[in-house]
Amino acid sequence: MKKWLALAAITLPMTAIADEGMWQPYQVPALEDKLKAMGLELDANSMSNLDAFPMNAIINFGGCTASFVSPEGLVVTNHHCGYGAIAYHSTPEDNILENGFLAKTKGEEKKPVPGYKIWVTESMVDVTDKVLAGTSPSQSGEAYYKQVQNNRKALVAECEVSDDYRCSVYNFHRGAQYFLIKELEIRDVRLTYTPAMSVGKYGGDIDNWMWPRHTGDYSFFRAYVGKDGRPADYSEDNVPYEPKRFLKVSAKGVENGDFVMVAGYPGRTNRYRTSYEVQNAFEFTYPKSRVAREELIELIKETAPDGSDARIKYEGTLASLANYAKNFQSMVEGYQKTGILQAKLDDEKALTDWVDGEGDRAAKYGGVIERVNELAKEGNAHGERDIILGYLRYNQMTGIANRLYRLAHEKQKADLDREPGYQERDWDGIEASMKRVDRRFDIAVDKAILAHQLEKYAALPQSERIEELDRIFGLSGKFDADALATKLDSMYATTDLGDLDTRLAWMDKSVDAFKASNDPFIRYAVAMYDTRMEAEHKDKDLAGRMLQVRPDYMAAIIAYNQSKGLPVYADANSSLRLTFGSVIPYSPQDGLVAVPFTSLEGLAAKATGVEPFDASEKQLKLIKDKIYGPYKSDVLGSVPVNFLTNLDSTGGNSGSPTMNARGELVGLLFDGVYESITADWDFNIEKSRSIHVDSRYMLWVMKYLDGAENLIEEMEVVE
Amino acid sequence: MKKWLALAAITLPMTAIADEGMWQPYQVPALEDKLKAMGLELDANSMSNLDAFPMNAIINFGGCTASFVSPEGLVVTNHHCGYGAIAYHSTPEDNILENGFLAKTKGEEKKPVPGYKIWVTESMVDVTDKVLAGTSPSQSGEAYYKQVQNNRKALVAECEVSDDYRCSVYNFHRGAQYFLIKELEIRDVRLTYTPAMSVGKYGGDIDNWMWPRHTGDYSFFRAYVGKDGRPADYSEDNVPYEPKRFLKVSAKGVENGDFVMVAGYPGRTNRYRTSYEVQNAFEFTYPKSRVAREELIELIKETAPDGSDARIKYEGTLASLANYAKNFQSMVEGYQKTGILQAKLDDEKALTDWVDGEGDRAAKYGGVIERVNELAKEGNAHGERDIILGYLRYNQMTGIANRLYRLAHEKQKADLDREPGYQERDWDGIEASMKRVDRRFDIAVDKAILAHQLEKYAALPQSERIEELDRIFGLSGKFDADALATKLDSMYATTDLGDLDTRLAWMDKSVDAFKASNDPFIRYAVAMYDTRMEAEHKDKDLAGRMLQVRPDYMAAIIAYNQSKGLPVYADANSSLRLTFGSVIPYSPQDGLVAVPFTSLEGLAAKATGVEPFDASEKQLKLIKDKIYGPYKSDVLGSVPVNFLTNLDSTGGNSGSPTMNARGELVGLLFDGVYESITADWDFNIEKSRSIHVDSRYMLWVMKYLDGAENLIEEMEVVE
Repeated sequence: MKKWLALAAITLPMTAIADEGMWQPYQVPALEDKLKAMGLELDANSMSNLDAFPMNAIINFGGCTASFVSPEGLVVTNHHCGYGAIAYHSTPEDNILENGFLAKTKGEEKKPVPGYKIWVTESMVDVTDKVLAGTSPSQSGEAYYKQVQNNRKALVAECEVSDDYRCSVYNFHRGAQYFLIKELEIRDVRLTYTPAMSVGKYGGDIDNWMWPRHTGDYSFFRAYVGKDGRPADYSEDNVPYEPKRFLKVSAKGVENGDFVMVAGYPGRTNRYRTSYEVQNAFEFTYPKSRVAREELIELIKETAPDGSDARIKYEGTLASLANYAKNFQSMVEGYQKTGILQAKLDDEKALTDWVDGEGDRAAKYGGVIERVNELAKEGNAHGERDIILGYLRYNQMTGIANRLYRLAHEKQKADLDREPGYQERDWDGIEASMKRVDRRFDIAVDKAILAHQLEKYAALPQSERIEELDRIFGLSGKFDADALATKLDSMYATTDLGDLDTRLAWMDKSVDAFKASNDPFIRYAVAMYDTRMEAEHKDKDLAGRMLQVRPDYMAAIIAYNQSKGLPVYADANSSLRLTFGSVIPYSPQDGLVAVPFTSLEGLAAKATGVEPFDASEKQLKLIKDKIYGPYKSDVLGSVPVNFLTNLDSTGGNSGSPTMNARGELVGLLFDGVYESITADWDFNIEKSRSIHVDSRYMLWVMKYLDGAENLIEEMEVVE
Repeated sequence: MKKWLALAAITLPMTAIADEGMWQPYQVPALEDKLKAMGLELDANSMSNLDAFPMNAIINFGGCTASFVSPEGLVVTNHHCGYGAIAYHSTPEDNILENGFLAKTKGEEKKPVPGYKIWVTESMVDVTDKVLAGTSPSQSGEAYYKQVQNNRKALVAECEVSDDYRCSVYNFHRGAQYFLIKELEIRDVRLTYTPAMSVGKYGGDIDNWMWPRHTGDYSFFRAYVGKDGRPADYSEDNVPYEPKRFLKVSAKGVENGDFVMVAGYPGRTNRYRTSYEVQNAFEFTYPKSRVAREELIELIKETAPDGSDARIKYEGTLASLANYAKNFQSMVEGYQKTGILQAKLDDEKALTDWVDGEGDRAAKYGGVIERVNELAKEGNAHGERDIILGYLRYNQMTGIANRLYRLAHEKQKADLDREPGYQERDWDGIEASMKRVDRRFDIAVDKAILAHQLEKYAALPQSERIEELDRIFGLSGKFDADALATKLDSMYATTDLGDLDTRLAWMDKSVDAFKASNDPFIRYAVAMYDTRMEAEHKDKDLAGRMLQVRPDYMAAIIAYNQSKGLPVYADANSSLRLTFGSVIPYSPQDGLVAVPFTSLEGLAAKATGVEPFDASEKQLKLIKDKIYGPYKSDVLGSVPVNFLTNLDSTGGNSGSPTMNARGELVGLLFDGVYESITADWDFNIEKSRSIHVDSRYMLWVMKYLDGAENLIEEMEVVE
């Protein structure tokens, strides 16, 4: 198979720099020489073994990473990863988010948050052949897409034989390689210890993405299982989970130049996009999306004034809108500053020259960039409209109605034939989402969002308009805001979807029941269904064609990089990865150097007494009195708080254990520097830096500030 | 004499660190061992000789410093020091401020700006005995003050025998020591060369006080004299001045750690204030003054809207108000961050402990801090009122009237008896100030300022009110804004002081003529005269008492520092000083290091095309093409643009030549870092840094960007 030939390259030994790269565990033995030269003392083969140390200690924390640090299932992750659970247990009377919390005994631990789970990857099996079985280059895009989807569903169904495990097929290199990943799913996870917010979120949003940093971004949980050692729902009878492996915690830490590595679950990167795709993302999608977000923020703030009940319901939505508005803005700034596009163009030129060079390269890879771009352009043909309708997702009523009606359709099929997301394994999730609505919904706001997005849609040229949408909302003629408002008033006044029981009832109703309904949003969903399905077919067809083409493109890149001895690793896809590098300074700009450690004294110097710089009196006194204990770095002359590495990371790596050459935990990765903000698209070895909380600071806070001796005792601390 | 005994200490050999300190030339031989150890290659004795190299090459540039860099009177200083002259020669048709200017021959140089002068210090003679002759500790404060003032005036009159020289008596250590300083006054100074604004003011106000910095802050002038070699007014027949000494210019520059020194005219520092004085300045005067400035800014902007003729007249005033409002704000921030007060309190405690220690110290110095504080508190007794009435100086009409009437009074006396500022030598200056009024005056704004300050004054408690002022403006009862407005409308409608000829005519009128006038502002000045004189007597009496006490306080500090081997130098007072140190990085905050050089590439990275980051296409092309010429630093791998030193400097040092161990010019001092903003009160060896433009960057711009080969040829460049 053509696809498979290209992939052989991925498994060949690498001799290139290993600083950049999110490596799959099976690739580590091939990196051994390089890693040994960098300082690794562990056996590279054992590192590729998910059953062995240290990989078996690494935890998928659901969008974050964590690790086991005791034989009794003690888990450490970032404070910001545990934030939801900590907030859940916080009450005005016992504000543990603000003040911190320590269970001095297991009995004092906080009961699990409903639905809170963690996973340990037990196996990653290459299933590319099985996923691609029955596909052919001559298939239509949609047929190809469906075949891949069905093969994936079948593999998951075959693997997921009990509640103990979650199985997923992960796509690597955008269609070139697939792995079936099986994870142990632990469902009883209890909060054991968190420092106060003034430690765990010191610097807050102001310091987010910034260096110098002084955040004690860690929290502790404990995993429990049934008496039989198998995952179980919460019960008083459950016992601490005994992980096969756990990490020792270093009280010595690392120093400038030391080898370090991180294992974790990085989310998404875009390192292998074409220059056209890069340009489109940074010059169209990010800027347009930022504006869309800022408009929604303004709209929500207007409609739900400060202090109103509605505002409280939308605080989370506002924070998320603002977070990415800022992120996109920074991305665009970074793009303009760093010349990513030029770098991409240069790379692409070099690749093209290489393809046009000796041998049969032109025959194998010729025109592959153009083919990807052609499909990418097809996908962006309605970019403006796609963004407008995409942000309609912030309107709950249309989304709920569409989802419920789709469920009714899918339920008519056999489970394996259902669209992913609508299979039986997904129904609990759908129900939970229907329940969540009330906490984040206000009629006035929801209506305003719908009106706003429809008005933007109505301003699009005729060629971009959707007949059915125009008809439902009466948008065909000249836009009439008043008429639309009247229409929406009436819809919101008569719909029953605002009621939870009604929503849950619809989960079990037939397509005919939907068709017979007078609820205006159900009618909307019914009316839009064919249009939406048609669009989905087109999308799948395009996705299928991209799945047919992208592996050829990746094969060209891989072969080319290989010829230059450059590393080849797959884009991040939330699967378990390893990255290797060192503690190292960088120059954020000409004339300045960010040195790799911050100190207790720097933390104290930032203190203002006002959140987020509200270090406690007790902490400031300890610092003033130079109570360093065994956690002092002689080089720094103080206890290190945070440190910098050139490790290649992204969202999802948060909470990852930072390990020294012996696999001892020397810190937790929790952020990147501002100059890393575009690293998802272009890793810059000069400027991309990860930020870690130092294990010495963690231990210092535990010992002197929070009196968590019980946990220090429980862990294996390397002095 | 008691005062004199204390001063013996100042002249004793120093062995302490020389990094801090603005040394008088005569002190340098005593520092020789230390300076040799630091790297100085010049003879320390010859450095104390104002006739010799390099001191004779140092120029007082009127609030800035400059230096001779060719045998034909070529002068280099900062661009911001030459700014006024460059702006004067700029026209919309030939905007040399924007585009730069280069005279390829002497004939092309720009004619001198009227009144533009430079000075070269020829002698500094200790005249303490003469200034203090006839004084005694038992005198009243006012008598002491007058005696000192009269002695000083007599010394100046005796010295100033021709227009070739300017003589002044400078007060050192606030009354402990006086020097008669005689400066050659050169009156024909022509603009020779300035780079474009995009070089000379690159980074503008945004980068002001900031590191990293990339400013080419230099400009060139040429001094001319009559054919007889003596200073002369401008004439086509004048010839270039031949300085006794000039500085060679280094094309090699300095590297990190190298010895450097700066000679110049630092303005004012407050290194020896008591903790009470420090606290009062930072907790009362600076914050209150900042508010007063911000109020005036708002008032002027309201009264003179953007784009109005009035606004144009007040742009300079607004800039100056804003500049110091920001400076005061930063000072207060720095004060809060750096713990200056605590440092002062600690110093003061140590001093007190030392005084209370062995020998006759208590007898000599006991209670001296308390005595200074007592007088300082007396001076601040009406602090709130003093600030309000102080900012009345921004009202022109009252100021003009007061000044003219005072002149009439002073003219009744013999010249030597007149108040300084009203002697014959000052009349030209008074006339010039009367002429300048029109360019900076608008009735509506002037009236608004007067109304605003009077309203603030009227809110003061009865104890702070001035009877005569209340009477004139009818402020005795409840404040009536309308009544005041009517009163001011009438005053401004009927005064003739807005007319230049009228103002000039008043310069020659008698006291009786003033008393007979109906002009409302003249009547104001006449009515206020006795009150103002009474206040002045009180001020002089207090100043006299402070002059009697402060030297004792300084003697204690000097003796104490001496005992600890710490340096003793006088606060800056605009007289010629030397400071020694090295090129050195610093840490602006925990986790960051400011490295001591910036590069061409860093300059290019800041370029946005928009002022103040509008580096020209030509310059960016040269950088992109790595055209470094002989100006590249191998260590940096590029041409250094700006560099950092720990040299002790303040306002007035701008334009100072930065010299290497051999006295070659390696740069020009032009700014300090943000952390230096409080250095006038407390020099912090860890954080106080001066910023210099590198001679290599200056030469690079001259050669590659501006084609100033004629000047490079003329200078003696050390390759």
